[in-house]
Amino acid sequence: MRLHVINPNTSRDMTYSIEQIATANVSGETEVLTTCPAHGPASIESYYDEYLAIPHVLAEVQRTEAMTDGYVLACWGDPGLDAVREVTTRPVVGIAEASMYAANAIAPRWSVVTTLRRSHHMVEAIVKKTGLMERCASIRCVDMPVLACEANPDAVMEELVHMGELALSEDGAEAIILGCAGMGGMADYLSEELGAPCVDPVAAGVRFAELLVNLNLQTSKWLTYQFPEKKAFK
Amino acid sequence: MRLHVINPNTSRDMTYSIEQIATANVSGETEVLTTCPAHGPASIESYYDEYLAIPHVLAEVQRTEAMTDGYVLACWGDPGLDAVREVTTRPVVGIAEASMYAANAIAPRWSVVTTLRRSHHMVEAIVKKTGLMERCASIRCVDMPVLACEANPDAVMEELVHMGELALSEDGAEAIILGCAGMGGMADYLSEELGAPCVDPVAAGVRFAELLVNLNLQTSKWLTYQFPEKKAFK
Amino acid sequence: MRLHVINPNTSRDMTYSIEQIATANVSGETEVLTTCPAHGPASIESYYDEYLAIPHVLAEVQRTEAMTDGYVLACWGDPGLDAVREVTTRPVVGIAEASMYAANAIAPRWSVVTTLRRSHHMVEAIVKKTGLMERCASIRCVDMPVLACEANPDAVMEELVHMGELALSEDGAEAIILGCAGMGGMADYLSEELGAPCVDPVAAGVRFAELLVNLNLQTSKWLTYQFPEKKAFK
Amino acid sequence: MRLHVINPNTSRDMTYSIEQIATANVSGETEVLTTCPAHGPASIESYYDEYLAIPHVLAEVQRTEAMTDGYVLACWGDPGLDAVREVTTRPVVGIAEASMYAANAIAPRWSVVTTLRRSHHMVEAIVKKTGLMERCASIRCVDMPVLACEANPDAVMEELVHMGELALSEDGAEAIILGCAGMGGMADYLSEELGAPCVDPVAAGVRFAELLVNLNLQTSKWLTYQFPEKKAFK
Amino acid sequence: MRLHVINPNTSRDMTYSIEQIATANVSGETEVLTTCPAHGPASIESYYDEYLAIPHVLAEVQRTEAMTDGYVLACWGDPGLDAVREVTTRPVVGIAEASMYAANAIAPRWSVVTTLRRSHHMVEAIVKKTGLMERCASIRCVDMPVLACEANPDAVMEELVHMGELALSEDGAEAIILGCAGMGGMADYLSEELGAPCVDPVAAGVRFAELLVNLNLQTSKWLTYQFPEKKAFK
Amino acid sequence: MRLHVINPNTSRDMTYSIEQIATANVSGETEVLTTCPAHGPASIESYYDEYLAIPHVLAEVQRTEAMTDGYVLACWGDPGLDAVREVTTRPVVGIAEASMYAANAIAPRWSVVTTLRRSHHMVEAIVKKTGLMERCASIRCVDMPVLACEANPDAVMEELVHMGELALSEDGAEAIILGCAGMGGMADYLSEELGAPCVDPVAAGVRFAELLVNLNLQTSKWLTYQFPEKKAFK
Repeated sequence: MRLHVINPNTSRDMTYSIEQIATANVSGETEVLTTCPAHGPASIESYYDEYLAIPHVLAEVQRTEAMTDGYVLACWGDPGLDAVREVTTRPVVGIAEASMYAANAIAPRWSVVTTLRRSHHMVEAIVKKTGLMERCASIRCVDMPVLACEANPDAVMEELVHMGELALSEDGAEAIILGCAGMGGMADYLSEELGAPCVDPVAAGVRFAELLVNLNLQTSKWLTYQFPEKKAFK
Repeated sequence: MRLHVINPNTSRDMTYSIEQIATANVSGETEVLTTCPAHGPASIESYYDEYLAIPHVLAEVQRTEAMTDGYVLACWGDPGLDAVREVTTRPVVGIAEASMYAANAIAPRWSVVTTLRRSHHMVEAIVKKTGLMERCASIRCVDMPVLACEANPDAVMEELVHMGELALSEDGAEAIILGCAGMGGMADYLSEELGAPCVDPVAAGVRFAELLVNLNLQTSKWLTYQFPEKKAFK
Repeated sequence: MRLHVINPNTSRDMTYSIEQIATANVSGETEVLTTCPAHGPASIESYYDEYLAIPHVLAEVQRTEAMTDGYVLACWGDPGLDAVREVTTRPVVGIAEASMYAANAIAPRWSVVTTLRRSHHMVEAIVKKTGLMERCASIRCVDMPVLACEANPDAVMEELVHMGELALSEDGAEAIILGCAGMGGMADYLSEELGAPCVDPVAAGVRFAELLVNLNLQTSKWLTYQFPEKKAFK
Repeated sequence: MRLHVINPNTSRDMTYSIEQIATANVSGETEVLTTCPAHGPASIESYYDEYLAIPHVLAEVQRTEAMTDGYVLACWGDPGLDAVREVTTRPVVGIAEASMYAANAIAPRWSVVTTLRRSHHMVEAIVKKTGLMERCASIRCVDMPVLACEANPDAVMEELVHMGELALSEDGAEAIILGCAGMGGMADYLSEELGAPCVDPVAAGVRFAELLVNLNLQTSKWLTYQFPEKKAFK
Repeated sequence: MRLHVINPNTSRDMTYSIEQIATANVSGETEVLTTCPAHGPASIESYYDEYLAIPHVLAEVQRTEAMTDGYVLACWGDPGLDAVREVTTRPVVGIAEASMYAANAIAPRWSVVTTLRRSHHMVEAIVKKTGLMERCASIRCVDMPVLACEANPDAVMEELVHMGELALSEDGAEAIILGCAGMGGMADYLSEELGAPCVDPVAAGVRFAELLVNLNLQTSKWLTYQFPEKKAFK
Repeated sequence: MRLHVINPNTSRDMTYSIEQIATANVSGETEVLTTCPAHGPASIESYYDEYLAIPHVLAEVQRTEAMTDGYVLACWGDPGLDAVREVTTRPVVGIAEASMYAANAIAPRWSVVTTLRRSHHMVEAIVKKTGLMERCASIRCVDMPVLACEANPDAVMEELVHMGELALSEDGAEAIILGCAGMGGMADYLSEELGAPCVDPVAAGVRFAELLVNLNLQTSKWLTYQFPEKKAFK
């Protein structure tokens, strides 16, 4: 099986980190290709960043469609997920949805800890779209930019512990979801510090993509996710 | 007051039609600029089309920000609405939300009639995001492409009447929202045929933008809609 | 265009204030008639007050129906809104719904600040009925009666600032809706103090009524809002 | 125990029927007073009718407060229920809510069958307000006026059977609620015809009022249902 | 009328207490049989306890079906309620649902105070299943085991007062529901201490069972609650 | 990795079929133990059956806890899922939730096709509990008992095709979930017949259990799923 993990932003450091986690979290027979688009924003922290990144994500998918069995979008906003499902018959996984499903299976309620406070609304929109707001105890923010996960991981981890503690003690969470692909690899330490399970979204994403490919499930082309109409593009 | 109405697709015919309706639906003192992006898809019928259009919509907004008092996105998917609100302090109106507010004020429940069947899910997503699914009696589709509104308006109208009748008689609707900017100008005839009010989304959009500008309301820059972080773009 | 703005309570001072705001917030061609019923409570702060006021509101509407193009109910409880829509073909606007639509267009979430704590439930009921609880960050109360807005505007303003700050800093609001017609005229100062947009409900109401009249939309007589059955009244 | 059953409309025939059912459905020690207001509409079929009736209902309650242990509002719209709870410390029951609670206890989902089609929206609003839309399989209408229940009971019954059958076979209902006080006394026959339980709302209402009085529960005066502020009434 | 009140746990002390309350809360003609199963857990505080108790509850019901007019499940988790409704035609009441209906009739919002913190999720699940989360202001826990209600009632009462005060002052509750059958008999004192009505769930349960029997309502056998299929049991 | 798949009913034929599918759907290194309890009903078609089965399911889990890495409950009602999570630290998967997550990833909306019509309510309850009713287009029933899947697979398949077609053409589904463990192995043929993806719940269940074990996720013991209190059992 060949999976293509796409980091929607153009940060090479972050792409490398994602690749490490993805590779470490597949079974022996799975081959993983991890890329980021050639163009687009260095990180995704606003709707603006997200929308500028998506066309390049779509191009990445179209570029590898013939040789790929499944896709993983490695950004907790699941950017362009519905559109990616239109341009391929392969199963496509957003790491946000994959990490919520994993968390659902081990805890009645969980919190998402993400980066900037401004992203609170974007995270909430994803949780709502997936239909799981009742399972979400809270959304908390470490209030540091996405790329701080690479540049200053210790400071991010310290805040993650702090916010995780608040989520567990005050918000009713019983597990934590790391709400940023840049936080990949931090789940084990955090889980030990908190005494409650933490979900690594990139790891959950690639495992869920393997699951779909192994189940032989393809994206439904019945109606909504049919290939886009051919039309003039200026 | 100067409003900028942006047709997110690149069809000049449709841009012209939208301009006609927009100009006819503002008060004397309002100046309307109607444009479409130089690049992008000729119509928006899939998530793919939508995401390819949005970066160009954002560029249109940034291009005119200094000389504009308010924006109208003239596509019933309100494409990129959250991002547009990030890149300007001016009020920004999506024609979907504006037409739902108008319909809410005249009927307990309404139906949206849109173009292709595949767009059903996109329309539903917008209604849900606005929080108004309980007011939405149904979403019906004429099953013709967006550009048929320009190329074959009589056939579209015939189907609109048919779907409107079904919405009123079977679905519990008491008003109809035209769910495509290309259907602009068809509301009056349809309303007369059906005996129930029909909302023209472009007209509702420009009127609602005037309302916001007249109320002196600016997009909140408190948190979510702050200007995007400055960062490297490849 | 002729709009009839009805203050549902019988306070002449408050009616005068509402008239000032209404007149200042219409375009040149619009004529505004602002009245209050001859009978009923001096202010509306309980369900009891509301229900005693409504029959007189309905009489006001019936009295002017022939010479009016649209109605505005200038009380944040939208008292009797569904019934008013039954007794006229003209569009009818409640200032609660109009101010929520305006707030929706400029902020992802907003708070309503109203008068007495006991009215919290009434305000929540209106927000729920409109379907917008997800957009409502909180409902806060200055804990002063409605008529204090006329008698003691400085004290009301001080508390509005205080509650607005709490809504923005603790509740997740990014804009404020003034939840009482008596607070008309306080939005600009409050907005400046808070650094976030505030919606004046009376201004939003008259502008939204203009919008509906300009769109040539009439109240749907399809089913629910048909004229009431003729019947014996004792 | 003394219960006051109020028929909110001014039809004496209907008041008499309600009295018959109420008296037949209390235990030996309970005394029932059944009245209708001296003023108001002969039946309640629109929001207009409802709002004109409510002030007279409130006066009825205030008239008997000193000598009554509990109140029943005998109209399926629960007209003025929140306000009645403000003007008394006694428990107050709406027959709509009482009949829904009874139906909940015997069936996973139920349908309400009411009179005119225009009342569909009012019935739905009550079900929503009570929070029980998920339990409501459908709302169906016999399409005859309220007073037909007195004037033409056989025709009403025939349509009730028809609509009840459709609710059970097509809508997923497993019990039927009679959605009009005028249908009191029809439940037993209907239940036998349909082979599924039917709830008589007036009977459910008086039994539920007895329950509350027996439990020694008074209307909470903690906040929302405090007595209305004393104020000037013109 | 003969009611069978079943305490789902096997604590004889608690069964005796429940019997006291049940007997004191029925009218003269009603005969009450209160039992607990011969087998099962001494108290129900986890899903595990609940599921081990349910088969024995079902056996209790089947044992007395011929001589009983209605059933009351005297545990605030309403354990096995749907299954009990399958094995009898008699009406079956869960004390959780009965107490919520009573609270709904006297307050716009209420809180449930239960025993262990771990039961928070079970209580929330019951409220959600009944469809009444919007009416539930909060769920609070005295953080003592169920049997402490028998062994240490003063300590439980002290914490009940404390939690009740917090619910009323901070959570928006206007009435309190005692969320454990073991708290039966504590409502009057608590209500006096708090100045707000408190609902005794066992009392509400037996009164609601009387109501259903008096209304001659049987469990619907239309579909979901049909008798279980006869089949092999190993 | 060692997974324990538990068929909650006592049918050996069905246990054997489940074992076939489970074994065929794990990676090479995974060892699968498939058992059914020694006691309990031959199939689960009512709440009664379900509750009688659960204690034996719990005993199965406790019996193998020391030597198992993860559990799969192979019945579409996810019977006793919350309780199983209390008695083990291992991850526990219900095939209902696993199949809904898989379906979510390949289609915007899906339908569940189950066995008896009476199970409609149980299926709906599971979908609601998981929070995914918005994604569920419909629940359809082949109207044959669970064991017909073993005894008469061709007849079941014929009805599955029929119901699947209706779900896709009339209900808005774009994928099908087989809503019974007994339908395991039928997905591929059905998918081919329908032209839309079908999810085998047993296969999805074991793959999802593998995912959780591979992610090193344990059931959260923070609060709700703590081990049950030690207590007297009669």
